[in-house]
Amino acid sequence: MREKLTVGYIGLGRMGIPMARNILKAGFPLVVHNRSQQAVQELAAEGATSAVSPAEVAAQVDVVFTNLPDSPDVELVASGTSGIIEGAHNGLIYVDNSSIKPATARDISKKLTEKGIQCLDAPVSGGDIGAQQGTLTIMVGGPQEALEHVLPILRALGKTVTHIGGPGTGQVAKAANQIMAAAQMVAMGELIILAQKAGANPSKVIQAIRGGAAQCWTLDIKSPRLLAGNRGPGFKASLQAKDLAIILETARQYGVALPATSINAQLFNAMLQMGMGELDNSAVIGVIEALSGTRLIVDG
Amino acid sequence: MREKLTVGYIGLGRMGIPMARNILKAGFPLVVHNRSQQAVQELAAEGATSAVSPAEVAAQVDVVFTNLPDSPDVELVASGTSGIIEGAHNGLIYVDNSSIKPATARDISKKLTEKGIQCLDAPVSGGDIGAQQGTLTIMVGGPQEALEHVLPILRALGKTVTHIGGPGTGQVAKAANQIMAAAQMVAMGELIILAQKAGANPSKVIQAIRGGAAQCWTLDIKSPRLLAGNRGPGFKASLQAKDLAIILETARQYGVALPATSINAQLFNAMLQMGMGELDNSAVIGVIEALSGTRLIVDG
Repeated sequence: MREKLTVGYIGLGRMGIPMARNILKAGFPLVVHNRSQQAVQELAAEGATSAVSPAEVAAQVDVVFTNLPDSPDVELVASGTSGIIEGAHNGLIYVDNSSIKPATARDISKKLTEKGIQCLDAPVSGGDIGAQQGTLTIMVGGPQEALEHVLPILRALGKTVTHIGGPGTGQVAKAANQIMAAAQMVAMGELIILAQKAGANPSKVIQAIRGGAAQCWTLDIKSPRLLAGNRGPGFKASLQAKDLAIILETARQYGVALPATSINAQLFNAMLQMGMGELDNSAVIGVIEALSGTRLIVDG
Repeated sequence: MREKLTVGYIGLGRMGIPMARNILKAGFPLVVHNRSQQAVQELAAEGATSAVSPAEVAAQVDVVFTNLPDSPDVELVASGTSGIIEGAHNGLIYVDNSSIKPATARDISKKLTEKGIQCLDAPVSGGDIGAQQGTLTIMVGGPQEALEHVLPILRALGKTVTHIGGPGTGQVAKAANQIMAAAQMVAMGELIILAQKAGANPSKVIQAIRGGAAQCWTLDIKSPRLLAGNRGPGFKASLQAKDLAIILETARQYGVALPATSINAQLFNAMLQMGMGELDNSAVIGVIEALSGTRLIVDG
């Protein structure tokens, strides 16, 4: 039997901590790095070791992961000073779980591949609960053989792993995912407020429509929370807004017009300006409430 | 055992014919009326009788249904000259399966209730296939006791019957349903075209995201048709555009701002102007194609 791959994980935030922990639990020796030390100490107490820079992590492991807020962060950690590129060695595979611009993912892949590092963009969907439970949806772009090599690790993180195509296509799939998710969130907010102001009980309305053509994850999973008065994350609106900004920039770059996503992006921008960026993305209903001069009446 | 209710059905279009047929098949004596005689003859050959006006239908039955294109059609047939109101008799129940303005449904209910007719607005979702198979989603507004009386008939038409509340609330639920359905259709078009132009296979992308937060009826049921090159109805874009116009008028009337539905309505308007009104509502991707100077590459 082959020895277990040694794994590095860089970026221990709301998603990164539970994902790194699931890798550790699955029995892979783990080396971690993070700007803030608290998360590092937490995982060290559970059996991980730590390294002082992304380069030092990369030098010690077979597979190195990142999970960072935005495109410039990933660029810096992957290919900047003391970055992963400086720890390059024969056979190193780099997997990025962040949600960033497809174009950035392609640039990074090109740079690192030239140094002999195989690169996969592998953004995830499913939120912090999916991260904790290891039930994420993982969308992968990059070489098939690299994916096959790291698949045992990805299986510890998610319930579905789909190979889309070449470098950057995992990020394209994540963008597609967020187009639909944002559309559903805004539509849910609009239909609930219309129902209430037009004299129908929103809970009854959702009960009636969720089995038909309007059926979706958002109505199934998010509407009960919203109707019970819970607007906490879940998936923060500020991250939804960031993802929508990535989508619109990608659309411009690749020559696509996205009229509906454009207005959805503006509604999430408004949400941030109205001080609701730390709430769940379903709380975009707050913008519709403000625009309609009303508040959702909570059940019970 | 009580005798079966005698039923009238007015409006034998794409939805009306199969729905009337299912009532007949369930063993209810049926009287029909329609502007064009071909549909009348078709159902007469299967055992229905016909009447020359809505008033004459109403006079002969316990429960009279309508299924008509738009609000003014329903107003005329319900309360105009030779309308249902003129065939009013003790115990008559009127059920409207059309998708019309909630405010019109409320006006009609008020007028007919004054003549002793109990009224239910009972729009449906599920398309012509749902109508044929008797698996529609039925959203009902109006008096509970009237609904209980006609429930055996509605069970022949749909798999779920939900009582929302007072008059017009069935139409409010239908509006809510169409807000979400339109949002999903447009988002599907946008994400498919973005994926293709950004270098990812749309089928692979949908396969990756349909199990996560983007999951919806539209991706599950409509994307395989679209990716196989089938843009035929299904549910015609012209009807989706009509429903969206109802929603925006209702929003104005009840004081709600619907920014995302507003842009979706404009995209369906564009679809009609571009000569695509007779296609399926999922064919709104054609507008995104035109705006993005591209065409979806069909699988296979």
